[in-house]
Amino acid sequence: MKYWFKNDYSFGAHPQIMNAVIAANLQGNIGYGFDEHTQYAKDIIREKCGLPNAMVEFMIGGTQTNVVACSFMLRQWEAVICANSAHINGHEAGAFESTGHKLLQVEVGIDGKLTPELIAPLLEIHKDVHLTKPKLVYISNATETGEVYTKAELMALSKFCKSNNLYLFADGARLGAALTSKSNDLTLSEFASFVDLFYIGGTKNGLMYGEALVIKNVDLCEDFFRMKKQMGAVMAKGWIQGVMFKALFEDDLFYKMASNANEMAEKLQYGLINLGFKPWIKSPTNQLFFIIPNKVKSKLNDICECEDWCVYDNNHMVVRFVTSFKTSESDVDGLIESIKNIVLKSR
Amino acid sequence: MKYWFKNDYSFGAHPQIMNAVIAANLQGNIGYGFDEHTQYAKDIIREKCGLPNAMVEFMIGGTQTNVVACSFMLRQWEAVICANSAHINGHEAGAFESTGHKLLQVEVGIDGKLTPELIAPLLEIHKDVHLTKPKLVYISNATETGEVYTKAELMALSKFCKSNNLYLFADGARLGAALTSKSNDLTLSEFASFVDLFYIGGTKNGLMYGEALVIKNVDLCEDFFRMKKQMGAVMAKGWIQGVMFKALFEDDLFYKMASNANEMAEKLQYGLINLGFKPWIKSPTNQLFFIIPNKVKSKLNDICECEDWCVYDNNHMVVRFVTSFKTSESDVDGLIESIKNIVLKSR
Amino acid sequence: MKYWFKNDYSFGAHPQIMNAVIAANLQGNIGYGFDEHTQYAKDIIREKCGLPNAMVEFMIGGTQTNVVACSFMLRQWEAVICANSAHINGHEAGAFESTGHKLLQVEVGIDGKLTPELIAPLLEIHKDVHLTKPKLVYISNATETGEVYTKAELMALSKFCKSNNLYLFADGARLGAALTSKSNDLTLSEFASFVDLFYIGGTKNGLMYGEALVIKNVDLCEDFFRMKKQMGAVMAKGWIQGVMFKALFEDDLFYKMASNANEMAEKLQYGLINLGFKPWIKSPTNQLFFIIPNKVKSKLNDICECEDWCVYDNNHMVVRFVTSFKTSESDVDGLIESIKNIVLKSR
Amino acid sequence: MKYWFKNDYSFGAHPQIMNAVIAANLQGNIGYGFDEHTQYAKDIIREKCGLPNAMVEFMIGGTQTNVVACSFMLRQWEAVICANSAHINGHEAGAFESTGHKLLQVEVGIDGKLTPELIAPLLEIHKDVHLTKPKLVYISNATETGEVYTKAELMALSKFCKSNNLYLFADGARLGAALTSKSNDLTLSEFASFVDLFYIGGTKNGLMYGEALVIKNVDLCEDFFRMKKQMGAVMAKGWIQGVMFKALFEDDLFYKMASNANEMAEKLQYGLINLGFKPWIKSPTNQLFFIIPNKVKSKLNDICECEDWCVYDNNHMVVRFVTSFKTSESDVDGLIESIKNIVLKSR
Repeated sequence: MKYWFKNDYSFGAHPQIMNAVIAANLQGNIGYGFDEHTQYAKDIIREKCGLPNAMVEFMIGGTQTNVVACSFMLRQWEAVICANSAHINGHEAGAFESTGHKLLQVEVGIDGKLTPELIAPLLEIHKDVHLTKPKLVYISNATETGEVYTKAELMALSKFCKSNNLYLFADGARLGAALTSKSNDLTLSEFASFVDLFYIGGTKNGLMYGEALVIKNVDLCEDFFRMKKQMGAVMAKGWIQGVMFKALFEDDLFYKMASNANEMAEKLQYGLINLGFKPWIKSPTNQLFFIIPNKVKSKLNDICECEDWCVYDNNHMVVRFVTSFKTSESDVDGLIESIKNIVLKSR
Repeated sequence: MKYWFKNDYSFGAHPQIMNAVIAANLQGNIGYGFDEHTQYAKDIIREKCGLPNAMVEFMIGGTQTNVVACSFMLRQWEAVICANSAHINGHEAGAFESTGHKLLQVEVGIDGKLTPELIAPLLEIHKDVHLTKPKLVYISNATETGEVYTKAELMALSKFCKSNNLYLFADGARLGAALTSKSNDLTLSEFASFVDLFYIGGTKNGLMYGEALVIKNVDLCEDFFRMKKQMGAVMAKGWIQGVMFKALFEDDLFYKMASNANEMAEKLQYGLINLGFKPWIKSPTNQLFFIIPNKVKSKLNDICECEDWCVYDNNHMVVRFVTSFKTSESDVDGLIESIKNIVLKSR
Repeated sequence: MKYWFKNDYSFGAHPQIMNAVIAANLQGNIGYGFDEHTQYAKDIIREKCGLPNAMVEFMIGGTQTNVVACSFMLRQWEAVICANSAHINGHEAGAFESTGHKLLQVEVGIDGKLTPELIAPLLEIHKDVHLTKPKLVYISNATETGEVYTKAELMALSKFCKSNNLYLFADGARLGAALTSKSNDLTLSEFASFVDLFYIGGTKNGLMYGEALVIKNVDLCEDFFRMKKQMGAVMAKGWIQGVMFKALFEDDLFYKMASNANEMAEKLQYGLINLGFKPWIKSPTNQLFFIIPNKVKSKLNDICECEDWCVYDNNHMVVRFVTSFKTSESDVDGLIESIKNIVLKSR
Repeated sequence: MKYWFKNDYSFGAHPQIMNAVIAANLQGNIGYGFDEHTQYAKDIIREKCGLPNAMVEFMIGGTQTNVVACSFMLRQWEAVICANSAHINGHEAGAFESTGHKLLQVEVGIDGKLTPELIAPLLEIHKDVHLTKPKLVYISNATETGEVYTKAELMALSKFCKSNNLYLFADGARLGAALTSKSNDLTLSEFASFVDLFYIGGTKNGLMYGEALVIKNVDLCEDFFRMKKQMGAVMAKGWIQGVMFKALFEDDLFYKMASNANEMAEKLQYGLINLGFKPWIKSPTNQLFFIIPNKVKSKLNDICECEDWCVYDNNHMVVRFVTSFKTSESDVDGLIESIKNIVLKSR
């Protein structure tokens, strides 16, 4: 049997989540998210975020949430600023552009982070009315390469966006991993205070599916449900999302699962460095990126599900290892031991 | 406690479905529907449909499936023909038009059925190149008011579409109810043979969520996954859909659940007629539409979750009652008894 | 040589318009409509409309103007209400829907007019959040069949729209014909006061091309140029539109040309009725619709360019005759004489 | 009076073009481009291109043509590859993305040219089905900075596109300038043979407006008119475009006008270099880009309409000078003399 480090969605729901779904399964609930579980889960999230008046809506997956949230904030000629490595700019198959908006890409470093300095020149150019109008800045926390924004960094971005009349949106597919990272110095409510809208990822943190979108300015949100419906994002049995998010925020499960993923990643990172492998970027969250010699790589797939990220050079690949709520110490130990054997044999 | 006849998505998954999900939950599976459960489920569906080469893809919900499937078949200037009462023309918040295509509405009767005779004049008008080009006919089976197409009716539509170079798409949100209806004379594979593409509804027939889209002409489908991804319809934990559909088609659960819903509806229809209520349309499937005096209606909501469909006249509402896999004989008996009491008291 | 009654765009520009273009042709002008001719023309139009603060923008053609103007006013989930016979719903090849919005059609009479009573039921139904949100009412003046709105009718619509939070847009492709019609009791500035946005048609009233879009609420218009550019509606040599519209509103040419068209139409209508033909609708503007026996119709095309509008019955067609700034008394007399000959011969 | 070197659309139509329009102005012509002038003009263009079977359609402006042509060739999930400096990626206000497609940008040099080597890596990455599918390569000839593709370069691109199943589209807004450039070694028909579709720019080469789109594979084009109509690109008085393009290709006016622009540019380039100014790129067509000291620049605007292109450094701007059919030797001499005076005074 292989070790699973391919991603954080190879396993379904945490048992506590699954038990909550089973308990509500045959109960009878109003459709489309108008049920009591959902209302309760929204209230918990508002409370945890310190945003008693925010709109919270449960979405199905990350691509959908990014697309619905970003396009919801924009008029037709308005554009989104993002890192060239942003998820919305790549592995979403043009989903955002399919809503008719342009993505304005900023070249960033491996860490995937945007800064005011990187964005400013683009704003200058776009004063020209023959161009689209930048209106929203998209960031991810954790970023696509597992990095996290510090309080100082996020505060600076937030201030810059406000003073330039830009919305700040955070893709939180791995927000749990970010907030429980050793590099993090933000609470959920502090994080929430710096952005205009964001989502709390459930799919990659122990739910079967589901993301919680939070929009702070409720004046904008009057018709959000119609938009959500139009975008195919309303589930008939929406109450299942309510049940799962309720369970996610009870008993700190959200943080516990993300912490486990981070701790297992740290342990694995330590082990791989000890074996002599070089990290491509030293991630403080649950995605690790290592520069692996091709001759090791070719045998790695026999023992482990992991992901080719990109070509490093003629002799090396960057390989991604991802941990999750389900990853155990023995998984990590076993993987390290197995890789050790590959290395030994390949000498 | 109230009786639940509001819709067929108030209850979650049939226990057999849920057990299958639990069994696979912590197994480790490849993401995005490339896992073995999903491949197996697709094979079963191809077999049951008698379409060994068809493309089968699992979608999340009905609105999404309608939008993705119909727009996938069209070039930008091509339009869809549907009944004015079609789901795609109403309770989908303009989802189809949001892809940039026009819906050409045909006025139909209460039964919601399209016929060649109803469509032909519209084709004549649209020979004019200043208009959109009709390219796909959208029908629902069962229709929005619970009616089913007979083999003769569907064959006639199919022939008409072929000879006019139109695709025929069937929204099968309630295909189980249609195929197990007493009015039905079609098998699944016969049904499949008459249309170009369709979906088998899971959400309204005992799954947590999920619809199985079937497209017969695989030459068109090379890039379907990219389209699906772009439309936010790919689930990271797609293997859960595979597991659910596998369980749905094992042990004839698909038919058993739908049959139960139909039988319970028939029993309820009989009971309501016996109490003196008049059906708006005499549905042979799991949705019933009754003309209810307002003074009965006002008390009905205390004992039963059901849905106001439309105003009939100043003194009557059309009320919809829906049964599901979960509806039991005692639910039906209890509801009839309770309505009887309302009627007695209201005299 | 045939008589030209096919439409009001078979002839180019009125000589006064053409002379103005020639005068400015090699003058040197800033591009994209930022030149002085354009600014001056906008000022004249604002003055004539009694709207000193309105935004005026020159567009290229009618379909483009309808699509840009209507979609500019809407958020993604918002819809337009129009008559089923509206130009935007037919001979624009789905242009409006291609921007992602739904058209909500209201069945109207031959005159093509909308009323509060016809719209109200649709608003009631669309309180349901699973549907699109109606936000703009589209009317045409003159309508597609040549009718005009009276002051009382337009005032009622205006009041209804305001109280229901709906924008009122008027397609003015033939606004000149409407305002100079004998049935009209509105001045341009009264007309402008009742709608939120509208356009003054140039293409069908003596320009080579060009429509003047007027939006009253300039707070909405900050980014209109970016939208216009995105929709391909900005002309590099935009100053030509400015020159033409300046000439159109100097010396009352706008009214003179439209009046000529209406007078020639009236004369033709009188003549055709005298010959025993029955009008399908008795139009007070420059489009006439007559019920013509097929055996007359078959010979009509030899002497006259006119348009088949629709089939009336097995033996008759509805034929449209259109007059323009170019139509002369001798054209009308000649046509009537020729038709008289056809009739005599066909007895 | 100022010298006009701001762009090639500050002057209207060449007198021969204007005279042709005047001659046809009150003639009576069928609408929407179905007239005889238009048919004749299409035939001439097919002949000049050596493409007897191609589709030729007259469009209004460059942005519109790029958007309609590119999106016409694509399915929803397919993307366009272009230089980061491409017109479609900048000064079109997101028009292409507004049709729902993604632009994949390739970083190129100042010359704005794409090569197979620059495109290949992007194709490799996009084999991943989670990404959009590249399907069309957009180039401009002349490029945005006035450079031209050689026969060898275009042949290589063409071969690469064919073997990778990509369409090759050429934006020919300044095709006349390219084909009459001293650096050019392509005839119009050779050029046409290397691309799948392209347009011949009229707006920037002596027409009032209008571009001629040519698509070689007519099997694709059956419904092009419906698409064109939907995109607001059909003009009611389309026959004016026919008349203008007929005149453009009679008497070699197309080449004569472009040659004049190029010769005047060459003369100006020579003069500016003689005055000691450095070209940013040494353009062989009618757009010149010079690095101008800010203190010269500040006085330049008093004597000449020209365009700030970009900041070169703290002390210099890149300024664009554009010539046209209208530019005369005395215009160039006068400008050089005037700049000389500025330079002398600023010492």
